[in-house]
Amino acid sequence: MSLLFGRVTVAGVGLVGGSLALAARETGSASEVVGFGRTAKNLEVARERGLVDRVTQDPAEAVRDADLVVLATPVGACAVLAEKFRDYARPGTILTDVGSVKTELVAALEARWAGVGPVVGGHPIAGSEASGAGAARADLFRDRRCILTPTSSTDSGALTRVRRLWEAVGARVEEMPPTAHDEILARVSHLPHLVAYALVEAVADLRVAGRQAVDYAGTGFRDTTRIAASPADVWRDIALANADPLRAALAEFRVALDALERFIGAGDAAGLEAALAVARSARQRLGRSD
Amino acid sequence: MSLLFGRVTVAGVGLVGGSLALAARETGSASEVVGFGRTAKNLEVARERGLVDRVTQDPAEAVRDADLVVLATPVGACAVLAEKFRDYARPGTILTDVGSVKTELVAALEARWAGVGPVVGGHPIAGSEASGAGAARADLFRDRRCILTPTSSTDSGALTRVRRLWEAVGARVEEMPPTAHDEILARVSHLPHLVAYALVEAVADLRVAGRQAVDYAGTGFRDTTRIAASPADVWRDIALANADPLRAALAEFRVALDALERFIGAGDAAGLEAALAVARSARQRLGRSD
Repeated sequence: MSLLFGRVTVAGVGLVGGSLALAARETGSASEVVGFGRTAKNLEVARERGLVDRVTQDPAEAVRDADLVVLATPVGACAVLAEKFRDYARPGTILTDVGSVKTELVAALEARWAGVGPVVGGHPIAGSEASGAGAARADLFRDRRCILTPTSSTDSGALTRVRRLWEAVGARVEEMPPTAHDEILARVSHLPHLVAYALVEAVADLRVAGRQAVDYAGTGFRDTTRIAASPADVWRDIALANADPLRAALAEFRVALDALERFIGAGDAAGLEAALAVARSARQRLGRSD
Repeated sequence: MSLLFGRVTVAGVGLVGGSLALAARETGSASEVVGFGRTAKNLEVARERGLVDRVTQDPAEAVRDADLVVLATPVGACAVLAEKFRDYARPGTILTDVGSVKTELVAALEARWAGVGPVVGGHPIAGSEASGAGAARADLFRDRRCILTPTSSTDSGALTRVRRLWEAVGARVEEMPPTAHDEILARVSHLPHLVAYALVEAVADLRVAGRQAVDYAGTGFRDTTRIAASPADVWRDIALANADPLRAALAEFRVALDALERFIGAGDAAGLEAALAVARSARQRLGRSD
């Protein structure tokens, strides 16, 4: 238990925001956690579950005297929120976020928060297809990576304090430039999400000889498409905010898929097996899901 | 416990064959289960784990006086095995298989087994990326579907006996034509496997700013690509034996993926969200992985 912050405001008390709020409370990292959000019902769940000390839908009340404001809404709502909060924050309030895309977003937050306080971009690589305050849990970040993305204007003291908060809730913190983060996450997260959504879309309504194809899906299909149950607004924002790296990742994926299809079209058993074996080895090195 | 068969020969005592052998023994469905395979080491594991009563690498010994021969090798090896076994099987021996592709394979087995006994094509929709006798377990088929694919020449008595075996080990048995099976499985199984292999292939060696991208993979990437750890020879055979339906499925998948990419390229937030929401609903209807 070490108090890192006085009042912490979490805007968007869903899976990630709610879990951070709860973990901050349970580790005694903040003297008070205030939950802000659009939806009264979700805020009520957050309050009832003890994720936060109190809730509000009023921006002024939300950030008054806050040491730290955490933006945990879909990426597309963050800059607007910073704009809403800026007039009510006291000088020095640190602004951070948990968004899956960083380059555009951190620049937007730095512009909105100029003259208020320091900005620290962050992204905990944790989550699931679940959403809402009801899905939050204090151990969500334990042994997960959290990437902080300082820029040339990031205050080093604020960076350290945000780092300590993530470490306190169990994350392994690493720093990298926002652009590196976005190039990497386009490949290991944004691309798989798009692919999963497309797989479901392609198969969902398909009927064969009077049978619904998805009724015959086994655990392979279910695991491969699990993340297609993720909230559409969250992934809409991520895909649009990271469009260029994501399109590069899609192009790389198509190259790999086209190569496999060419082996199949040519009946090239040896070529196909060799390509599958390379992928298999790489996947085996990666280890299990949990 | 009801004895359905006398001697049952399982050729290929891996995850699926080994599990069926063990479940047949545990449910008393066979008076004796003989394991046949190429690899002495795997057979030894099967024997030590009690998956089978005894093991052999000799085709004649394997099928002598067998009531039922189950081919549980990679699909591409099945017809060759049927050819090897045919001279040693007694008249009336039923031949069945567990292959993920049926049209070509069942026709090939019917040709090879002509004059010996009945052929019943089968495919339990169960398994995992694990392989080998060490991964076999008696409950692998419990509450899983098993599809039997009778043709115009399938003997109805043999079909009933094979159905009862699958029911005895816990599977929900359904019959459909081999072509319907192959069209459906191309979508819900073969396509996701190819996609998973391609995802891993595309990302495996990618470095960004001195960092290995896959090191930042979270549970989403891991789940989406879990099945890319499946044996390369198994999936080589399946992809080649079901090439036409699989290529049709790939084309459908590309249409869905291209549509998502067009929304991203056009910055069409509403269109993208609507498409993702449709896929999300479909995935949510499908339920969890287990």
